[in-house]
Amino acid sequence: MDNKGVNAVKKENFSEWYTQVIQKADLIDYSEVSGCLIFKPGSYSIWENIQSYLDGKFKKDGVKNAYFPLLIPEHLFKKEAEHVQGFAPEVAWVTHAGNTKLNERLAIRPTSETIMYDSYAKWIRSWKDLPLRYNQWCNVIRWEFKHPVPFLRTREFLWQEGHSVFATKKEADKEAIRILNFYADCYEKILAVPVLKGIKSKNEKFAGADYSLSVETLLPNGKAIQGATSHNLGQNFSKAFGIKFLDISEKNDYGWQNSWGFSTRSIGIMIAIHGDDKGIILPPNVVLNKVVVVPILFTKDKKEIVNVANSIVKKLKKFNPLLDDRDDYSAGWKFNEWEMKGIPLRIEIGPKDLASKQVVFVRRDNNEKINVKIKDIGKEVPKVLNEIQENLFLKAKKFLEGSIQKVQDISELKKVVNDNGIGKANWCGSPSCEENVKDKTGAKSLNSEFNSKAEGKCFACNAKAEYVTYFGKSY
Amino acid sequence: MDNKGVNAVKKENFSEWYTQVIQKADLIDYSEVSGCLIFKPGSYSIWENIQSYLDGKFKKDGVKNAYFPLLIPEHLFKKEAEHVQGFAPEVAWVTHAGNTKLNERLAIRPTSETIMYDSYAKWIRSWKDLPLRYNQWCNVIRWEFKHPVPFLRTREFLWQEGHSVFATKKEADKEAIRILNFYADCYEKILAVPVLKGIKSKNEKFAGADYSLSVETLLPNGKAIQGATSHNLGQNFSKAFGIKFLDISEKNDYGWQNSWGFSTRSIGIMIAIHGDDKGIILPPNVVLNKVVVVPILFTKDKKEIVNVANSIVKKLKKFNPLLDDRDDYSAGWKFNEWEMKGIPLRIEIGPKDLASKQVVFVRRDNNEKINVKIKDIGKEVPKVLNEIQENLFLKAKKFLEGSIQKVQDISELKKVVNDNGIGKANWCGSPSCEENVKDKTGAKSLNSEFNSKAEGKCFACNAKAEYVTYFGKSY
Repeated sequence: MDNKGVNAVKKENFSEWYTQVIQKADLIDYSEVSGCLIFKPGSYSIWENIQSYLDGKFKKDGVKNAYFPLLIPEHLFKKEAEHVQGFAPEVAWVTHAGNTKLNERLAIRPTSETIMYDSYAKWIRSWKDLPLRYNQWCNVIRWEFKHPVPFLRTREFLWQEGHSVFATKKEADKEAIRILNFYADCYEKILAVPVLKGIKSKNEKFAGADYSLSVETLLPNGKAIQGATSHNLGQNFSKAFGIKFLDISEKNDYGWQNSWGFSTRSIGIMIAIHGDDKGIILPPNVVLNKVVVVPILFTKDKKEIVNVANSIVKKLKKFNPLLDDRDDYSAGWKFNEWEMKGIPLRIEIGPKDLASKQVVFVRRDNNEKINVKIKDIGKEVPKVLNEIQENLFLKAKKFLEGSIQKVQDISELKKVVNDNGIGKANWCGSPSCEENVKDKTGAKSLNSEFNSKAEGKCFACNAKAEYVTYFGKSY
Repeated sequence: MDNKGVNAVKKENFSEWYTQVIQKADLIDYSEVSGCLIFKPGSYSIWENIQSYLDGKFKKDGVKNAYFPLLIPEHLFKKEAEHVQGFAPEVAWVTHAGNTKLNERLAIRPTSETIMYDSYAKWIRSWKDLPLRYNQWCNVIRWEFKHPVPFLRTREFLWQEGHSVFATKKEADKEAIRILNFYADCYEKILAVPVLKGIKSKNEKFAGADYSLSVETLLPNGKAIQGATSHNLGQNFSKAFGIKFLDISEKNDYGWQNSWGFSTRSIGIMIAIHGDDKGIILPPNVVLNKVVVVPILFTKDKKEIVNVANSIVKKLKKFNPLLDDRDDYSAGWKFNEWEMKGIPLRIEIGPKDLASKQVVFVRRDNNEKINVKIKDIGKEVPKVLNEIQENLFLKAKKFLEGSIQKVQDISELKKVVNDNGIGKANWCGSPSCEENVKDKTGAKSLNSEFNSKAEGKCFACNAKAEYVTYFGKSY
């Protein structure tokens, strides 16, 4: 593996820095198919931790896991007009099996509304079958023609997609927010990434939804990015697919639906936000190996140092510590490597430490060195890991909040986004106004706050303001 | 949901019975694409339990999870000659993205040797990079043109595929057996399905392997079925893909490789083996909801009975009990439903039971009814669940062992397989002899025992016997 340090500076050339740190941390590799990424164990284990967190939340909330086919017949895929328009340009089509040409083309799922709802229509007959709430963890393909960026924009990605049907709009509305809160918690508590929760504009909502909720955040390059979405589909799909049920008063109605997804894009956002010029920084809650123990191996006391290092590793088992006792690399080389890989806490032990019955903790997030008595390691490690998790979040929060500025007109927004910030404005919400803002500033709406009351007139068009909305350049 | 009972008899019409019980248990549904199955929560939760068991074994053994792209460029797919010949007839091809025709066709993975080993060749430089042992949990597509059967033969299925590279043949040989033992344990301890472990014949090994190990078992219709495989690939792929490394003595060598997989087919095998004419029977170790509590609701004592049923459910939390307190279905209807769904243990509580402070346990595996004092439920449930698990395994083992007969010549084998059994024979192992046996009896070799010493001459061709081999009609 390449142990030369990262040579791009995050503040000066974010794109180059991002590409370098991800490869040097051994998280991914490229395949021959542009935009189709290999998730190496370093990044896949992060995804497993995210899965474990979210899956637990969903199951506790009553959602059940299922699995629907990868391939969607073209006629099903085309059933909901707005949806097909949104996704068709990015669909990968299967046309042949072996040497046989298929009678109908099959779409590789870019998302599974159309294949799932065809079945839902068969399964749902009465209010007793509702709510029906299924989730699947799977791969999807969206053949974007823009330049791929690892995790952030890839043609194949991993995600979960939840698809619910309720008897009433009210239940669907409530679930949409509940799920959005799970997503926000996953970002904030696990990935240590602060997010803005809100509702997407008409222009930016999901193709086929009544409305979309999202969590958004800001990358260090001044581009805002959508972290995850929770869509209220109203009765659009249930009408297209015939998801009807007999309600409790024996009347026929169409189901009220939601869909919601969280993807491996989240890994890229986390890396972009926390990393520094030495490499990536992984929050303790998301990384498998939270600690690396590095014995400093001089000839003197070597055997004893290795023994103590081993006993520390044993004691810290639940943090899945790594032990780097390789003989053929210098201590400096090792420090460099584990910093590039973002391990939150390094524990060094050398002959001097041994003499004073202590070790040195080195925090990845702020480089702080702390002398810790060997006997106190068991209680100090979880304490320090918590501090690292919290510090990463607070630092990121300070950055996000410091980047948001209230704007009163288009020229103020333009200035804010030119300075890589996010503008916050009273806004009318109209699609044509959004187009105009975009033309003049390059910024799109990110989302609008749920509970803030808009005041006065729209910052851009002087119509009545309806929303308090975030605007920014976006990914 | 359809609560009419199963009306096919397992012994008389296995195929019809199998199709019925799977649908009535609400495990799957069909999609519009023939052979592409919907795994409903009932079957997906079984798969999650299998995943959790095997994933734990793999990780403890040092295997790391990763994820490789779904799509394989045609030229990579064709690199290993025997492999492409084996899989090409079943490959689904992506030819277009959006409206754009691709420059090169992309295969949807039928298995991932070719895409993974292209990367392995880049990653592996020296013996220090070995062993490299990655696994992925994913979907694959094999467009079989035979009639699809839920779980047992589907065009898309879920599986794990492990892919290892070692510096020595010896390590690869050892891992191949270690993994096979994990698979056998998963069948026997989790799915309660006894298996025959052994080595596949030259005709039946994996396309591109030096040898393949397998676990095999017998379905109630007299067809043997391969449960999972662990392949030793020798240096076939490492030479085709250039997976070279500098060994410890600074000489270049090609890596020694294994690949191994376990799929959702296992769910079908388990169902086929344990089910009866009332429906499926799920072993306690594989099912999420191990217990269903059914209060018998007459007007008398209704409230108290429901209260007691609720307290039982609370007490049994770790067995994920279901509570069926629906008002609008009779007790008989409910019993029928949970029997169709294969829940291992039903706990009934009615007014008489309440009076004598007891409940009735009804075992799904043997219909046995047991009166249990309410205060003893906590300790009796795990005991009875263990007994059910063991009984299912022993019953299946008796069936398998009773179906195996030693055969001395081709006519004896023909008789055994006509009687839906498995023949066990001293065999030479030659491909042409296997072809001859197949022509004359309809039976293929399943696998050959590892540790048995063949004696005398081949049962079929009189050449020297090399193996003790199982033969049967197969799926």
